[in-house]
Formats: sequence, C-alpha cells, structure tokens
Amino acid sequence: MPYFDAASAAPLHPVARQALLAALDEGWADPARLYREGRRARLLLDAAREAAAEAVGCRPDELVFTSSGTRALHDGIAGALAGRRRTGRHLVVSAVEHSAVLHAAAALEADGGSVTEVEVGRTGRVDPAAYAAALRPDTALAALQSANHEVGTEQPVTEVAEACRAAGVPLLVDAAQSLGWGPVAPSWSLLTASAHKWGGPSGVGLLAVRKGVRFAARGPADEREWGRAPGFPDLPAIVAAAASLRAVRAEAAAEDARLRALVERVRTRVPELVPDVEVVGDPVRRLPHLVTFSCLYVDGETLLHALDREGFSVSSGSSCTSSTLEPSHVLRAMGVLSEGNVRVSLPRGASAEEVEDFLGVLPGVVAAVREQLGAPTGASDAAATSEELVVDSLGKRCPIPVIELAKVIGDVPVGGLVTVLSDDEAARLDIPAWCGMRGHSYEGERPAERGVAYTVRRRA
Amino acid sequence: MPYFDAASAAPLHPVARQALLAALDEGWADPARLYREGRRARLLLDAAREAAAEAVGCRPDELVFTSSGTRALHDGIAGALAGRRRTGRHLVVSAVEHSAVLHAAAALEADGGSVTEVEVGRTGRVDPAAYAAALRPDTALAALQSANHEVGTEQPVTEVAEACRAAGVPLLVDAAQSLGWGPVAPSWSLLTASAHKWGGPSGVGLLAVRKGVRFAARGPADEREWGRAPGFPDLPAIVAAAASLRAVRAEAAAEDARLRALVERVRTRVPELVPDVEVVGDPVRRLPHLVTFSCLYVDGETLLHALDREGFSVSSGSSCTSSTLEPSHVLRAMGVLSEGNVRVSLPRGASAEEVEDFLGVLPGVVAAVREQLGAPTGASDAAATSEELVVDSLGKRCPIPVIELAKVIGDVPVGGLVTVLSDDEAARLDIPAWCGMRGHSYEGERPAERGVAYTVRRRA
Repeated sequence: MPYFDAASAAPLHPVARQALLAALDEGWADPARLYREGRRARLLLDAAREAAAEAVGCRPDELVFTSSGTRALHDGIAGALAGRRRTGRHLVVSAVEHSAVLHAAAALEADGGSVTEVEVGRTGRVDPAAYAAALRPDTALAALQSANHEVGTEQPVTEVAEACRAAGVPLLVDAAQSLGWGPVAPSWSLLTASAHKWGGPSGVGLLAVRKGVRFAARGPADEREWGRAPGFPDLPAIVAAAASLRAVRAEAAAEDARLRALVERVRTRVPELVPDVEVVGDPVRRLPHLVTFSCLYVDGETLLHALDREGFSVSSGSSCTSSTLEPSHVLRAMGVLSEGNVRVSLPRGASAEEVEDFLGVLPGVVAAVREQLGAPTGASDAAATSEELVVDSLGKRCPIPVIELAKVIGDVPVGGLVTVLSDDEAARLDIPAWCGMRGHSYEGERPAERGVAYTVRRRA
Repeated sequence: MPYFDAASAAPLHPVARQALLAALDEGWADPARLYREGRRARLLLDAAREAAAEAVGCRPDELVFTSSGTRALHDGIAGALAGRRRTGRHLVVSAVEHSAVLHAAAALEADGGSVTEVEVGRTGRVDPAAYAAALRPDTALAALQSANHEVGTEQPVTEVAEACRAAGVPLLVDAAQSLGWGPVAPSWSLLTASAHKWGGPSGVGLLAVRKGVRFAARGPADEREWGRAPGFPDLPAIVAAAASLRAVRAEAAAEDARLRALVERVRTRVPELVPDVEVVGDPVRRLPHLVTFSCLYVDGETLLHALDREGFSVSSGSSCTSSTLEPSHVLRAMGVLSEGNVRVSLPRGASAEEVEDFLGVLPGVVAAVREQLGAPTGASDAAATSEELVVDSLGKRCPIPVIELAKVIGDVPVGGLVTVLSDDEAARLDIPAWCGMRGHSYEGERPAERGVAYTVRRRA
C-alpha cells in the first residue's frame, strides 16, 4: 500500500529501528548520573551529538536535542529573540514558513514585538532582495526554511544569509524538510530540524546555535542540554535519530536522483492525464521527493478520501492538521489554486511501479469527484443570457463557488461580467487562480452584504 | 549488577518494550492525517490516552501527553498561572518539590510574581495547616508532590487539597514518584507525571487538567494535544507509556509489599551496620521502594564512586545532576545531615539477595572513605587544652569541616566552645546535624571575615 506522505512523517528507517532497540537496553539511565549505567548513557548521548553535529555541520557543543522540530523552532526563535532584545523586537520570516514559525511570530506580535512576512513568488520562492529589504536596524532575528514543506521549493538560503550577515542579523534556518538530503550551506546562525522527517523516530528535534550568537533560553531553568531543552532526554530516540541521519545521508545521492526522476514523471504526466490541473512549486530548485498539484473543481478532502480508498496515502492543503478548513497559507502566499490540492512526498524506497499505479488511478478518481460535485465538463453551449450575472454561492464551501462560476461563464458574452458572492475564504484564492487557468480577467473583490463579491470578466 | 536508582529512571518494563516495538510499526504516521496510516495512529493515540486517563483517574479529554515530566510541570504551572492571572500572581509550593517546580517558581518571581515556599518537618512532610496558612486571596496556584523524590516521604495531598478547595485555589499534584504505585486521591486540579519513573520509556510526561480549571497554555499556538503540548507526538513512546502504566499497576500491590519489606530491612540494618548514620524521611508514610540515609564524615560523591566500583548504582544529594556541589535543597529544608548522602531506590524486581549484598558491602565502603578522609574513629583521648578553640576550615569542602570539628571537640572541656570557620555552604546544614547526632549544642552562626563562623558547645 503506497504511502506518499513522507513530508509529514517518514516510516522508521531500519537503522533507526536497530539503534533504538540497542539504546533501549543501553541508554535508559540518566546520563547525568555517576554510576556505570549513567556513564554508558552519557557516552551514547555524546556519540549521538557528535554524529548529528557532523551531519548538521556544527560543533557538538552548538547542538542540543529537543523533543520535536516544533519545540526546536519555538524555543530557538524565543531564545534568539530574547538574546537580542536590546537590538529590537522585530522578526523577519517568509510567508511560507512552517506554521510553527508563524505561530512563534504571532506570539511575538501578541507580546508587543513586530513581524515582517516576506512575500514569495508563484513558485513559492522568496526573493533575496525583498528579504534583504525587510531587515531593519531593530531586527532581532530572521527565519527562513531551507525548502518548503508543502510545495518542495528550495529557498535561496545562501543569498539571504549573506544579506543577514551584512545587516548583522542572525538567520535561523528551518531545515526540517531538507536535512536528510544534505547539509545546509554553513551560513546560518541557528538551525532546526526534526528526526521523523528523515526516517528517524518521533520525539527528537535538533536545535543548533552557533557560538557567538546571542541566545537566552526562555522558560524555567533546567540543567539538561545546557539549559536549552528542559527535561529528561529521550536517549534511545536520540541515538536512533543520529544513527539514521548518518544512514540516510549515505544513501542520499542515489536516492535523490531516483526520486527526483519519479517526481519529474508526476510533474509531467499529471497535467497530461488530468484536465484542469496546476502543478505548483519550483520545477527545478526543489526537494527531490515532493510534488504538489491542485485540481480545479475538486474538494481536497474528498479527493484524499477517494485516493485513500484506492490505497494511496497523500496529504493536502495545510501541512499540520486534517481539521483545518482554511486554505493552506503557503498556497495562498503563492497565489495559486488551492482547491483539490494534493501533496505527493515519496518516502525513500518508493518504487516506480507505485508511482505509475498512482498515475493510473488519479484521473479516474478526480473525474469521479468532479462528477459527484457537478463540475462542468466542457464549455457551456447555452447562449449568452445577460451582460452581467450574479452567482449566489453563500454558505457553500470550496470548490462549489468555482464550479458555479464555471457553469455560468458561458451565459455572458465575451467581455461580460460574472460576480460570485461567497463567504468561503478559499474563494479569494481560487477564483483568481481559475481566471488565470481559463484565460478570463479577474476584476477584483468588494465586500457584499454577506460575504465578498468577486467579479470576473469573460475573455474567451 | 544491582541498579538501585529507580527514582531517577527505571529500566524499561517488558510490557513497555513490547508495546514500543509494536507501535514503531503501527504508530509512526501523523495521527492528524486522514489516510489509513494516520487513522491507525489516531486509534493508538486515543487508546493510550484512555488507558492513561483511567490510571490517573480523569477523563481522556483532560489528559495530554508531554515530552517529559519536567515539561508537564513547566507548562502545567505556566498554564495554570496564566489562566488565573486575574486572581493574582502568587504561587504556593512546598520547600521539597522537584527542582522543575522550584525553577518554574523562580521564573514566576523573575517575572514579577510571588512565591511562598511552605517549610517541612524533619521527615520532609509538609504540615497541612502550614500549607493552608500560605494560601492568599491572590494565590493563583498551589503545587504539592504526592511523595518526595529524594527521601520518599508521602505528602498529605488530601488534606492540602481540602484546604485549597476551601480557598478556591487549584492544586497541582506532581505525582512523578508515586503514579506507578497507585492513583492520587481525586482531589487534585492538575496532575503531572513522568513515564520513565514507572518503567515506561523516556520522552513521555503526563499533564492532566480537570475540566473547569482555568488554563491558558503559554507559548506559540499549536494544534496538537489541544494546544497544551506542542509538536509531533512521540506515539510509540506514548503507547509504551500507557501500556506499562497499566502493567505496573497490576503488579503494584504485590511489589509494594515486597519492596516495602526490603526497604524496611535497609532502614533497620544500615544504622546497625554503619556507625554515625542518619536514616532520613518518614519511616511509615513513604514510597515503598525508596530509602535515604546520610553518613557522617563522608563525601557523597566519593561514596557513590566507591559503591559503583563494588557494582551498586545509587544516587546522592540533589536529584537532578551529578555536577551540583550544593547540598540537596530537600535535605536542607528538612534540616538533616546532608554529607555522605545515599538514596537507594529499588526497581521492580529488585531481589532480597541484592539488598543483602548491598548491606554487606556498605560498612566497609563507608569505613574506607572515612579512613581516606581522616575521619575520627572514636572519642579523642587528648586532655582539654583550652576553654575555646577555633578551627579554620576555610577552603575545605564538606565533610572536612565536620571531620575537623569532631577531631577537636575532645580538646575543650564539657561546656567549652569550638568555633568552625567554613566557606562551604553544606557546613550550615551538617554542623547542626552533627551536634544533634553527637549530643552537643549548636550555638549558632555569625559572619566571619571570610566565610561563616559556626559555634558548638561541648555537652558530653
């Protein structure tokens, strides 16, 4: 049964499993203790730290193990901000960071600090010049992911780091999605990662802080991990995380090439096989294993369930929960279609056969969902009935507003207007995206008595 | 090789190991996802939560899994304080809480709040009336351990909870040391625990918050665990924690009786076998598996190393690190001897033979350490040389100041005075304790040009 959601959580790597089992026997004691079980645990912890630091590209005493990537981000951002509080309370992030970064930014704003979100282009890539322009004299910290978790686009970390260096601002790089594939260019000041993204166990994040970077850990004092990650360390998981990072790195070059070709196949074939699809994300500067596309006239959750019934596990929309109904902040920042969004992220070892099976199943699944939702199948052959039409989609969830728009566009003449009334936030993204895909003009939005009125001019 | 430090970390229970292995295969995916691997993970998480909640004695939706007992305490205290901020910013704790509680209290004070530490008696037990008297109209939270981690004394949780209820103050009970032995009486408002204390894996803490208790999680928002424990859940460890809690509870009654008798044996035999020993902690209202004693004229760290060489792993002094040179805050609060402190905490399955072996080895080890330090072996037979003597122990670490005091006490007549100059913080605790053990009068301390002058009157 193909599992294609490695970007959420990768299945445990065999080396991780083996190391975990060994460390359950050897590493359960408190590494701070003086007796033999404690000394043995300390040796394992030290060795894991050295191995992880080598893979990260830092000194062992710059690296601590946290309980998750989210904790590494929350605590890393808070500590870096506190360490430079005298400089100011301004944080720069890209608009497509992981929600853990954006939540930390929101916490800063709630506490009286300020945040600049640097916009991205349609591929999800941040412009280094725009990022540099956001840096201010009171900027305490800048954060940028190494690669995007939803669309796979690599960020220009080296260029942004250079701008940060010139401005004297430390740069935190969230390397959660990329660390298993290779080290981040060494220009970062802080770096975070998450073991279960590379095939390590859950329960382990990494937080590296370069010597010389001002850092003041927040929260109550604690003796563990130099005060940067409180609580008894989960040593078996840490040992497994370090061992598996080393193992996946050894396989990375070969697996990168193999999966990159499979993803390229998906990027090429999906638009050929499924009508009205937009493949998003940078086609070249991208993670090897991840591809995202959006299908017009399709509801993402329904599509996921349908693919699940066919045996394919993929993800959609927002990266963090299944319960979020809002469109993904990443797709919104990119200005691309969000409806019918599918993220395919191949785990190591995914086979060409599994990918072909997926490509074989996808067109029928999308067609069935579209039929079920009553999506238009071609150009309307009705004669134009009016110069201007209003479609009331109030109370209807995405993709219904776009489907209803598509159904009536043929009812106005070329140059005529259709206005869609919608109270679904996704319409703000998807109606302009539909116009772009269909060659119509998006004329803008205005508040309506209920919801928002989106106006489209028929061009073809 | 006998491991007698279960109160730091218990070896993994076989049920925990088995459950962990199963959940590595079944529970690595994201439980928030809609596909089958996610649904399977969600089922495991829900089942673990139900099992743990039943053992705790709460509803499943009142319980979240944190990454450690320390995190549960830090985040539970912060959340409860924030939830009742309008009431006030006063926190009541006992003086013998785990350092994670005292560190959270210090963080509150650093942030402008106030803390009352309720003193304990010589057994380490808090007086419910004294605790009740510390509650104020602006008290936002009270915290009390179910049993002490260093000396095993059980606290009067039910009586203190009653006082808190009467005052309208929520009570957080730190059940880290006791939860494996049985549920806490249901009068708590918040409860915390740590899985590796009961034979579960490291990486799992519990935080239970009763419905109706005001709670406002601090830090950046996160969707996991109702916002109370951010980050990807360590599901295999959580499953193992819940399964092992159930397993140890099933064995608790029999193991409690068995270990209680072994501890009783240690409590009785150690003072018979080793001269100048003080067994500390409540002899009756105590944890079944834990006993602590202090040996006069002995340095704790040296004693630990000597016992380790004989194959016995025990703990000493402060519970959290091996590097702390200050005497344990628990022993200090109890006003008992801190030098040569040894905590024996038996893991489940510890045998009577292991305990007898320990009792067989201990006297020789203590005697060797004393000889090495030049401790007095009996009453000095020198004639009194002076009505008043001053011993300069400046720059000498515990237990040397007490050893030097003991060596000269025979040099003054009964009724005469010896003053010890010392700059070691432990002397403040150990000189009065030595007087108590030897029947001399402790006359008090005063600042000296360097260090502190402690004066003792010879009584026998």
